[in-house]
Amino acid sequence: MAHPTFVLAEATTLLDRTPPLLDAWLRPLPSCWLACDEGPQTWNATVVVGHLIEGELTDWVPRTRHILAHGDGVPFLPFDRFTQLRRPERTIDELLDEFARLRRQSLADLRALDLQPGDLERRGRHPEFGPVTLGQHLATWVAHDLTHIAQIARVLAHRYADAVGPWRQYLRIVQPR
Amino acid sequence: MAHPTFVLAEATTLLDRTPPLLDAWLRPLPSCWLACDEGPQTWNATVVVGHLIEGELTDWVPRTRHILAHGDGVPFLPFDRFTQLRRPERTIDELLDEFARLRRQSLADLRALDLQPGDLERRGRHPEFGPVTLGQHLATWVAHDLTHIAQIARVLAHRYADAVGPWRQYLRIVQPR
Repeated sequence: MAHPTFVLAEATTLLDRTPPLLDAWLRPLPSCWLACDEGPQTWNATVVVGHLIEGELTDWVPRTRHILAHGDGVPFLPFDRFTQLRRPERTIDELLDEFARLRRQSLADLRALDLQPGDLERRGRHPEFGPVTLGQHLATWVAHDLTHIAQIARVLAHRYADAVGPWRQYLRIVQPR
Repeated sequence: MAHPTFVLAEATTLLDRTPPLLDAWLRPLPSCWLACDEGPQTWNATVVVGHLIEGELTDWVPRTRHILAHGDGVPFLPFDRFTQLRRPERTIDELLDEFARLRRQSLADLRALDLQPGDLERRGRHPEFGPVTLGQHLATWVAHDLTHIAQIARVLAHRYADAVGPWRQYLRIVQPR
Protein backbone atom coordinates (compact mmCIF):
# COMPACT_ATOMS: atom_id res chain seq x y z
CA MET A 1 0.00 0.00 0.00
CA ALA A 2 1.47 3.38 -0.99
CA HIS A 3 2.43 5.71 1.82
CA PRO A 4 -0.34 8.26 2.18
CA THR A 5 -0.15 11.90 3.03
CA PHE A 6 -0.09 12.50 6.77
CA VAL A 7 -3.58 13.36 8.08
CA LEU A 8 -3.69 14.59 11.66
CA ALA A 9 -7.15 13.19 12.42
CA GLU A 10 -5.92 9.70 11.48
CA ALA A 11 -2.79 10.05 13.60
CA THR A 12 -4.76 10.99 16.70
CA THR A 13 -7.02 7.93 16.43
CA LEU A 14 -3.91 5.82 16.92
CA LEU A 15 -2.27 8.05 19.57
CA ASP A 16 -5.48 7.77 21.57
CA ARG A 17 -5.17 3.95 21.66
CA THR A 18 -1.71 3.58 23.17
CA PRO A 19 -2.66 4.10 26.84
CA PRO A 20 -5.62 1.67 26.83
CA LEU A 21 -3.65 -0.98 24.98
CA LEU A 22 -0.71 -0.74 27.37
CA ASP A 23 -3.14 -0.81 30.27
CA ALA A 24 -4.91 -3.94 29.03
CA TRP A 25 -1.55 -5.62 28.42
CA LEU A 26 0.67 -4.65 31.32
CA ARG A 27 -1.40 -3.67 34.36
CA PRO A 28 -2.33 -7.23 35.37
CA LEU A 29 1.07 -8.78 34.62
CA PRO A 30 3.24 -10.22 37.39
CA SER A 31 6.71 -8.81 37.96
CA CYS A 32 8.36 -11.74 36.16
CA TRP A 33 7.14 -10.08 32.94
CA LEU A 34 7.27 -6.44 33.92
CA ALA A 35 10.85 -6.66 35.15
CA CYS A 36 12.31 -8.86 32.42
CA ASP A 37 14.65 -7.23 29.92
CA GLU A 38 17.05 -8.11 27.12
CA GLY A 39 20.20 -7.94 29.23
CA PRO A 40 22.38 -5.27 30.84
CA GLN A 41 21.59 -1.69 29.78
CA THR A 42 18.29 -2.69 28.18
CA TRP A 43 14.82 -1.58 29.17
CA ASN A 44 12.03 -3.59 30.70
CA ALA A 45 8.36 -2.85 29.95
CA THR A 46 8.04 -0.65 33.03
CA VAL A 47 10.93 1.56 31.90
CA VAL A 48 9.38 1.86 28.44
CA VAL A 49 6.15 3.25 29.94
CA GLY A 50 8.28 5.72 31.93
CA HIS A 51 9.95 6.76 28.66
CA LEU A 52 6.57 7.34 26.99
CA ILE A 53 5.65 9.60 29.92
CA GLU A 54 8.77 11.71 29.33
CA GLY A 55 7.75 12.13 25.68
CA GLU A 56 4.44 13.64 26.76
CA LEU A 57 6.18 15.95 29.21
CA THR A 58 8.97 17.30 27.04
CA ASP A 59 8.69 16.23 23.41
CA TRP A 60 5.43 15.89 21.49
CA VAL A 61 3.25 18.86 22.40
CA PRO A 62 6.13 20.99 23.70
CA ARG A 63 8.00 20.73 20.35
CA THR A 64 4.74 21.37 18.49
CA ARG A 65 4.37 24.62 20.42
CA HIS A 66 8.04 25.36 19.81
CA ILE A 67 7.60 25.09 16.03
CA LEU A 68 4.51 27.30 16.15
CA ALA A 69 6.32 29.89 18.27
CA HIS A 70 9.82 29.88 16.77
CA GLY A 71 9.64 28.17 13.38
CA ASP A 72 13.12 27.03 12.41
CA GLY A 73 14.80 30.01 14.04
CA VAL A 74 15.48 28.24 17.35
CA PRO A 75 16.37 24.52 17.47
CA PHE A 76 14.42 22.25 19.81
CA LEU A 77 15.96 21.35 23.12
CA PRO A 78 17.46 17.86 22.78
CA PHE A 79 15.14 15.12 24.05
CA ASP A 80 16.74 13.13 26.86
CA ARG A 81 15.92 9.49 26.18
CA PHE A 82 17.13 8.39 29.59
CA THR A 83 15.31 10.75 31.99
CA GLN A 84 12.98 7.98 33.13
CA LEU A 85 15.96 6.03 34.48
CA ARG A 86 16.68 8.86 36.95
CA ARG A 87 13.11 9.22 38.24
CA PRO A 88 12.04 7.68 41.56
CA GLU A 89 10.79 4.16 40.96
CA ARG A 90 7.04 3.89 40.44
CA THR A 91 4.69 0.94 40.12
CA ILE A 92 3.24 -0.03 36.77
CA ASP A 93 -0.17 1.13 38.01
CA GLU A 94 1.17 4.59 38.78
CA LEU A 95 3.00 4.80 35.45
CA LEU A 96 0.01 3.65 33.41
CA ASP A 97 -2.27 6.10 35.22
CA GLU A 98 0.13 8.97 34.60
CA PHE A 99 0.70 8.07 30.97
CA ALA A 100 -3.05 7.89 30.31
CA ARG A 101 -3.62 11.25 32.00
CA LEU A 102 -0.77 12.96 30.14
CA ARG A 103 -1.75 11.51 26.77
CA ARG A 104 -5.35 12.71 27.25
CA GLN A 105 -3.99 16.15 28.06
CA SER A 106 -1.62 16.11 25.07
CA LEU A 107 -4.45 15.26 22.68
CA ALA A 108 -6.67 17.94 24.22
CA ASP A 109 -3.85 20.48 23.87
CA LEU A 110 -3.35 19.44 20.26
CA ARG A 111 -7.06 19.86 19.49
CA ALA A 112 -7.00 23.30 21.13
CA LEU A 113 -4.21 24.35 18.73
CA ASP A 114 -6.70 23.72 15.91
CA LEU A 115 -3.94 22.93 13.41
CA GLN A 116 -4.88 23.23 9.76
CA PRO A 117 -3.37 21.13 6.95
CA GLY A 118 -1.14 24.04 5.96
CA ASP A 119 0.32 24.18 9.48
CA LEU A 120 1.78 20.69 8.97
CA GLU A 121 4.27 22.25 6.53
CA ARG A 122 5.59 24.68 9.13
CA ARG A 123 9.28 24.26 9.69
CA GLY A 124 11.21 23.55 12.85
CA ARG A 125 14.87 22.83 13.49
CA HIS A 126 16.06 19.62 15.09
CA PRO A 127 19.20 20.08 17.19
CA GLU A 128 20.95 17.22 15.37
CA PHE A 129 19.56 16.84 11.90
CA GLY A 130 18.21 20.29 11.12
CA PRO A 131 15.07 21.12 9.13
CA VAL A 132 11.90 19.19 9.89
CA THR A 133 8.21 19.95 9.45
CA LEU A 134 5.47 19.92 12.04
CA GLY A 135 3.80 17.08 10.08
CA GLN A 136 6.99 14.99 10.30
CA HIS A 137 7.17 15.63 14.04
CA LEU A 138 3.57 14.52 14.56
CA ALA A 139 3.99 11.41 12.36
CA THR A 140 7.05 10.57 14.46
CA TRP A 141 4.92 10.72 17.62
CA VAL A 142 2.79 7.90 16.17
CA ALA A 143 5.74 5.85 14.93
CA HIS A 144 7.50 6.32 18.28
CA ASP A 145 4.52 4.84 20.14
CA LEU A 146 4.53 1.89 17.74
CA THR A 147 8.28 1.37 18.09
CA HIS A 148 7.91 1.03 21.82
CA ILE A 149 4.88 -1.26 21.58
CA ALA A 150 6.98 -3.52 19.36
CA GLN A 151 9.87 -3.18 21.81
CA ILE A 152 7.74 -4.37 24.73
CA ALA A 153 6.63 -7.41 22.70
CA ARG A 154 10.28 -8.16 21.87
CA VAL A 155 11.44 -7.73 25.48
CA LEU A 156 8.74 -10.08 26.77
CA ALA A 157 9.47 -12.65 24.04
CA HIS A 158 13.18 -12.58 24.86
CA ARG A 159 12.33 -14.27 28.14
CA TYR A 160 11.42 -17.40 26.16
CA ALA A 161 14.31 -17.22 23.67
CA ASP A 162 15.59 -20.57 24.96
CA ALA A 163 12.26 -22.02 26.08
CA VAL A 164 10.84 -22.15 22.54
CA GLY A 165 13.53 -24.67 21.53
CA PRO A 166 13.65 -25.45 17.80
CA TRP A 167 10.80 -23.04 17.03
CA ARG A 168 13.37 -20.31 17.55
CA GLN A 169 14.33 -20.44 13.87
CA TYR A 170 10.79 -19.36 12.93
CA LEU A 171 10.47 -16.61 15.50
CA ARG A 172 12.63 -13.67 14.55
CA ILE A 173 11.37 -11.85 17.64
CA VAL A 174 13.56 -14.07 19.86
CA GLN A 175 16.63 -13.99 17.64
CA PRO A 176 19.62 -11.71 18.35
CA ARG A 177 19.26 -8.38 16.58
CA MET B 1 18.42 -11.16 32.52
CA ALA B 2 19.06 -14.90 32.22
CA HIS B 3 16.42 -16.94 30.46
CA PRO B 4 14.35 -18.69 33.09
CA THR B 5 12.81 -22.10 33.11
CA PHE B 6 9.40 -22.13 31.46
CA VAL B 7 6.60 -21.94 34.05
CA LEU B 8 3.11 -22.55 32.71
CA ALA B 9 1.36 -20.25 35.20
CA GLU B 10 3.54 -17.35 34.02
CA ALA B 11 2.87 -18.11 30.37
CA THR B 12 -0.88 -18.08 30.83
CA THR B 13 -0.86 -14.64 32.48
CA LEU B 14 0.50 -13.29 29.20
CA LEU B 15 -1.69 -15.44 26.90
CA ASP B 16 -4.69 -14.10 28.77
CA ARG B 17 -3.75 -10.50 27.90
CA THR B 18 -3.55 -10.75 24.11
CA PRO B 19 -7.30 -10.48 23.36
CA PRO B 20 -7.92 -7.44 25.61
CA LEU B 21 -4.85 -5.63 24.32
CA LEU B 22 -5.81 -6.22 20.69
CA ASP B 23 -9.34 -5.13 21.50
CA ALA B 24 -8.22 -1.89 23.16
CA TRP B 25 -5.90 -1.18 20.24
CA LEU B 26 -7.77 -2.20 17.11
CA ARG B 27 -11.53 -2.18 17.69
CA PRO B 28 -11.96 1.59 17.52
CA LEU B 29 -9.52 2.16 14.65
CA PRO B 30 -10.72 3.44 11.27
CA SER B 31 -10.11 1.35 8.17
CA CYS B 32 -7.15 3.48 7.10
CA TRP B 33 -5.22 1.71 9.88
CA LEU B 34 -6.91 -1.68 9.87
CA ALA B 35 -6.47 -2.13 6.12
CA CYS B 36 -2.93 -0.77 5.75
CA ASP B 37 -0.17 -3.27 5.07
CA GLU B 38 3.50 -3.42 4.09
CA GLY B 39 2.91 -4.02 0.39
CA PRO B 40 1.76 -6.86 -1.86
CA GLN B 41 1.49 -10.27 -0.16
CA THR B 42 1.78 -8.76 3.33
CA TRP B 43 -0.79 -8.85 6.09
CA ASN B 44 -2.79 -6.02 7.56
CA ALA B 45 -3.82 -5.97 11.23
CA THR B 46 -7.19 -7.54 10.44
CA VAL B 47 -5.55 -10.52 8.74
CA VAL B 48 -3.21 -10.96 11.73
CA VAL B 49 -6.19 -11.30 14.09
CA GLY B 50 -7.64 -13.87 11.68
CA HIS B 51 -4.34 -15.76 11.85
CA LEU B 52 -4.40 -15.76 15.66
CA ILE B 53 -7.89 -17.27 15.49
CA GLU B 54 -6.59 -20.13 13.32
CA GLY B 55 -3.91 -20.83 15.91
CA GLU B 56 -6.57 -21.32 18.58
CA LEU B 57 -8.57 -23.59 16.27
CA THR B 58 -5.82 -25.87 15.01
CA ASP B 59 -2.50 -25.32 16.74
CA TRP B 60 -2.08 -24.49 20.42
CA VAL B 61 -4.48 -26.69 22.37
CA PRO B 62 -4.94 -29.25 19.56
CA ARG B 63 -1.18 -29.93 19.40
CA THR B 64 -1.03 -30.04 23.21
CA ARG B 65 -3.66 -32.79 23.14
CA HIS B 66 -1.78 -34.46 20.28
CA ILE B 67 1.41 -34.66 22.36
CA LEU B 68 -0.48 -36.03 25.35
CA ALA B 69 -2.23 -38.62 23.17
CA HIS B 70 0.55 -39.66 20.78
CA GLY B 71 3.85 -38.47 22.22
CA ASP B 72 6.42 -38.36 19.44
CA GLY B 73 4.96 -41.38 17.67
CA VAL B 74 2.77 -39.35 15.29
CA PRO B 75 3.91 -35.97 13.90
CA PHE B 76 1.60 -32.98 14.22
CA LEU B 77 -0.47 -31.99 11.24
CA PRO B 78 1.29 -29.06 9.54
CA PHE B 79 -0.14 -25.69 10.61
CA ASP B 80 -1.45 -23.74 7.62
CA ARG B 81 -0.33 -20.15 8.10
CA PHE B 82 -2.59 -18.88 5.35
CA THR B 83 -6.00 -20.37 6.22
CA GLN B 84 -7.31 -16.97 7.34
CA LEU B 85 -6.81 -15.61 3.82
CA ARG B 86 -9.34 -18.14 2.49
CA ARG B 87 -12.04 -17.44 5.10
CA PRO B 88 -15.03 -15.21 4.30
CA GLU B 89 -14.18 -11.64 5.15
CA ARG B 90 -15.19 -10.55 8.64
CA THR B 91 -15.19 -7.20 10.42
CA ILE B 92 -12.60 -6.44 13.06
CA ASP B 93 -15.40 -6.54 15.68
CA GLU B 94 -16.34 -10.07 14.66
CA LEU B 95 -12.72 -11.21 14.59
CA LEU B 96 -11.87 -9.70 17.98
CA ASP B 97 -14.98 -11.23 19.52
CA GLU B 98 -14.15 -14.64 18.13
CA PHE B 99 -10.49 -14.47 19.13
CA ALA B 100 -11.42 -13.50 22.71
CA ARG B 101 -13.94 -16.33 22.92
CA LEU B 102 -11.55 -18.92 21.52
CA ARG B 103 -8.63 -17.81 23.71
CA ARG B 104 -10.82 -18.01 26.83
CA GLN B 105 -11.80 -21.52 25.78
CA SER B 106 -8.20 -22.50 25.05
CA LEU B 107 -7.06 -21.37 28.47
CA ALA B 108 -9.97 -23.17 30.13
CA ASP B 109 -9.10 -26.34 28.19
CA LEU B 110 -5.47 -26.00 29.23
CA ARG B 111 -6.42 -25.63 32.90
CA ALA B 112 -8.65 -28.69 32.62
CA LEU B 113 -5.66 -30.72 31.40
CA ASP B 114 -4.04 -29.95 34.78
CA LEU B 115 -0.52 -30.21 33.37
CA GLN B 116 2.22 -30.83 35.90
CA PRO B 117 5.82 -29.58 35.53
CA GLY B 118 6.92 -33.06 34.45
CA ASP B 119 4.39 -33.01 31.59
CA LEU B 120 6.27 -30.11 30.02
CA GLU B 121 9.07 -32.55 29.17
CA ARG B 122 6.75 -34.81 27.20
CA ARG B 123 7.89 -35.21 23.61
CA GLY B 124 6.07 -34.52 20.39
CA ARG B 125 7.21 -34.60 16.78
CA HIS B 126 7.05 -31.57 14.54
CA PRO B 127 6.40 -32.43 10.88
CA GLU B 128 9.40 -30.36 9.74
CA PHE B 129 11.97 -30.22 12.50
CA GLY B 130 11.27 -33.30 14.53
CA PRO B 131 11.52 -33.66 18.32
CA VAL B 132 10.00 -30.95 20.49
CA THR B 133 8.67 -30.85 24.03
CA LEU B 134 5.28 -29.77 25.27
CA GLY B 135 6.99 -26.97 27.19
CA GLN B 136 8.62 -25.69 23.98
CA HIS B 137 5.25 -25.79 22.22
CA LEU B 138 3.58 -23.77 24.99
CA ALA B 139 6.42 -21.23 25.16
CA THR B 140 6.05 -20.84 21.39
CA TRP B 141 2.37 -20.00 21.87
CA VAL B 142 3.43 -17.01 23.98
CA ALA B 143 6.22 -15.92 21.63
CA HIS B 144 3.89 -16.30 18.63
CA ASP B 145 1.37 -13.88 20.20
CA LEU B 146 4.20 -11.41 20.84
CA THR B 147 5.57 -11.77 17.30
CA HIS B 148 2.21 -10.79 15.89
CA ILE B 149 1.71 -7.91 18.32
CA ALA B 150 5.08 -6.57 17.14
CA GLN B 151 4.03 -7.23 13.54
CA ILE B 152 0.87 -5.14 13.92
CA ALA B 153 2.92 -2.27 15.36
CA ARG B 154 5.33 -2.55 12.42
CA VAL B 155 2.54 -2.69 9.83
CA LEU B 156 0.86 0.40 11.26
CA ALA B 157 4.17 2.28 11.48
CA HIS B 158 4.96 1.45 7.86
CA ARG B 159 2.13 3.77 6.85
CA TYR B 160 4.26 6.69 8.09
CA ALA B 161 7.58 5.46 6.71
CA ASP B 162 7.78 8.56 4.52
CA ALA B 163 5.77 10.91 6.71
CA VAL B 164 8.34 10.85 9.54
CA GLY B 165 10.93 12.48 7.25
CA PRO B 166 14.45 12.65 8.72
CA TRP B 167 13.37 10.91 11.93
CA ARG B 168 13.32 7.75 9.86
CA GLN B 169 16.99 7.09 10.65
CA TYR B 170 16.09 6.76 14.35
CA LEU B 171 13.03 4.58 13.87
CA ARG B 172 14.06 1.10 12.85
CA ILE B 173 10.37 0.12 12.82
CA VAL B 174 9.87 2.06 9.56
CA GLN B 175 13.08 0.91 7.88
CA PRO B 176 13.14 -1.89 5.28
CA ARG B 177 13.75 -5.24 6.88
